[in-house]
Amino acid sequence: MVMRCPAEIGMSEAEVDTPALLVDLDAYEANLRLMAELTEGKVRVRPHAKTHKSPVIALHQIAQGAVGMCCQKVDEAIALVDGGVRDVLVSNQVVGAAKVLRLAALARRARIGVCVDAREQVEALAEAVERMGSSLDVLVEIDVGSRRCGVEPGEPALRLAERVEEEKGLRFGGLQAYYGSAQHIRDPGERREAVKRAAGLAGDTVLLLDRYGLRCDTVGGAGTGTFADEIELGAINEIQPGSYIFMDGDYRRNRVEGAPTYERFAQSLFVLSTVMSTRPEHAVTDAGLKALSVDSGLPDVHARSGSLYTGASDEHGVITHADGRPFQLGERVRLIPGHCDPTVNLYDWYVGVRTGRVEAIWPIPARGALH
Amino acid sequence: MVMRCPAEIGMSEAEVDTPALLVDLDAYEANLRLMAELTEGKVRVRPHAKTHKSPVIALHQIAQGAVGMCCQKVDEAIALVDGGVRDVLVSNQVVGAAKVLRLAALARRARIGVCVDAREQVEALAEAVERMGSSLDVLVEIDVGSRRCGVEPGEPALRLAERVEEEKGLRFGGLQAYYGSAQHIRDPGERREAVKRAAGLAGDTVLLLDRYGLRCDTVGGAGTGTFADEIELGAINEIQPGSYIFMDGDYRRNRVEGAPTYERFAQSLFVLSTVMSTRPEHAVTDAGLKALSVDSGLPDVHARSGSLYTGASDEHGVITHADGRPFQLGERVRLIPGHCDPTVNLYDWYVGVRTGRVEAIWPIPARGALH
Repeated sequence: MVMRCPAEIGMSEAEVDTPALLVDLDAYEANLRLMAELTEGKVRVRPHAKTHKSPVIALHQIAQGAVGMCCQKVDEAIALVDGGVRDVLVSNQVVGAAKVLRLAALARRARIGVCVDAREQVEALAEAVERMGSSLDVLVEIDVGSRRCGVEPGEPALRLAERVEEEKGLRFGGLQAYYGSAQHIRDPGERREAVKRAAGLAGDTVLLLDRYGLRCDTVGGAGTGTFADEIELGAINEIQPGSYIFMDGDYRRNRVEGAPTYERFAQSLFVLSTVMSTRPEHAVTDAGLKALSVDSGLPDVHARSGSLYTGASDEHGVITHADGRPFQLGERVRLIPGHCDPTVNLYDWYVGVRTGRVEAIWPIPARGALH
Repeated sequence: MVMRCPAEIGMSEAEVDTPALLVDLDAYEANLRLMAELTEGKVRVRPHAKTHKSPVIALHQIAQGAVGMCCQKVDEAIALVDGGVRDVLVSNQVVGAAKVLRLAALARRARIGVCVDAREQVEALAEAVERMGSSLDVLVEIDVGSRRCGVEPGEPALRLAERVEEEKGLRFGGLQAYYGSAQHIRDPGERREAVKRAAGLAGDTVLLLDRYGLRCDTVGGAGTGTFADEIELGAINEIQPGSYIFMDGDYRRNRVEGAPTYERFAQSLFVLSTVMSTRPEHAVTDAGLKALSVDSGLPDVHARSGSLYTGASDEHGVITHADGRPFQLGERVRLIPGHCDPTVNLYDWYVGVRTGRVEAIWPIPARGALH
């Protein structure tokens, strides 16, 4: 049930079995360093492991100054702690007795935080930490624009924070003010306006809580698409970017105007595929829906000017021939996934390559960590 | 890296950890029986394991009269043979030295077939079976309308079949004439016309090959959406349906007019999710893009009239409240995936339920079998 690794260290890229999830190590390492440069002395960085699902990568991020990791699921947090991460925030609500108990148990082995947006969640967490003899940091999630989870900023956040403070096994840690959808607003002006409104709501809520003696050590949020604006605005003191290490087609399609900081991050993640059939009008690669998530658009064809990936079925991808150079049967094609996070979730292994040679193989232990 | 199973046998459905991939066993078993009834004495059935990726389910299908299985990838075939299946057709081209060698090795342990659409593939297969001391059945894939893989019907198919016959380790087995895209033509009249054209092309090619002494023991193709028409037309003698055991939202959205046979198959596959956050205008479930493939549309909400799943992000699904009955925090919601095959590919376990109780747990060993 764990798939065989498609590569061996020392192989050339041409020998890797396909489809394979490639990490261009030069680009990846440059992305790690760039995030450290852009944030050092300005804001705490708690990268999102929902992108990579790997404690190996988490430890690289921590070595570059990250204070810990965030993730979305309890089983992702367990995989991170088992891999050596000592500080994990589940930046999400955890609902369900078994999940809450696993989270409380994990909190005996590492510093663990979690978000809430309802009193019932607070009560379930309190009961579980009492049972396990542990304690949790709790952030109140406020809805600053995503219209998904979170209580309203202001009074509702205050009331929920007070409820957290009543429980002795829970430490009120501050606010979660993540505005995921803002990152995918194409227009940089609109994106900045949205982030500014969100920062205002978060800032006002911090002040309100402060008046009631509730100190927000952490105001968390922001991702790859918004962190630069958020740092300037100053409402968030702990950013949670994920995609910056890999990047993807969706980020590439955001408008270049306004040159957002994230355009300095390089594409480091690829799906390596093989041409398995050719005809005069197109070629077919072996990477389809089971090798690439298409929720945010079809993949781009890397380094082959004029070639387009025009259709995905379960196990096939149709690509048009590149200008002036048709694809050959057996030829390798690097594809750029439309959306990195759910694409990573389809693989068991990263194959790290540098100048055409396999240099590192990293398992993806939180692949499929849905719980 | 194998995710913990979300259920125990004997549990109530309400105790299953979510998201979980549920199989309603009554509906599933009815689907198995219905396919046997509809096809017995009319056509050979070789169900497609790319849907379920499970030798347990394959053996259920064989017990209902299936002659063997088909699948798309070598590693899927290996998982099936390891699980007790003795006859597997890889209904796809296999390109790449390592893959071809694994296929040839597998052919020492079971009857294995594969499709080709280029001479280079024939030569690579011949070399591998010679090296492994095995033999393979080879079907020539013809393009009967999909415009994806396959040679043109007629002369090009004849030339490739002759090339197969020259190799002593390869047995020419007939034609692969699968027309996948026809299954998703919404209008039943158009769908039937497309299938009819395809059957004509396949039939003519069989006659041509026959004139040259090349007998097509197998003419394979057809899926859940087209097999009833194909049986009537008579060009295909071995059908390859996959989705019928589970069904999905995309099949449900095909037009009811004309009452295609596949509408008699019941929805047996669900993603069980939990409401993790609620607000006046919607609820949020814990099943998003990593729990459901949205390539063929968002999931449907089962058994909650008026409720719609309106948006998926990585780990969240927004659903509108059902008419007159808002969702409660912690409530369980069954979702019907838009597309069954790539959704199954996100899970390690099937949880089989009957009348609200867990009765079976089946691993999904070919989950992630991309090679």
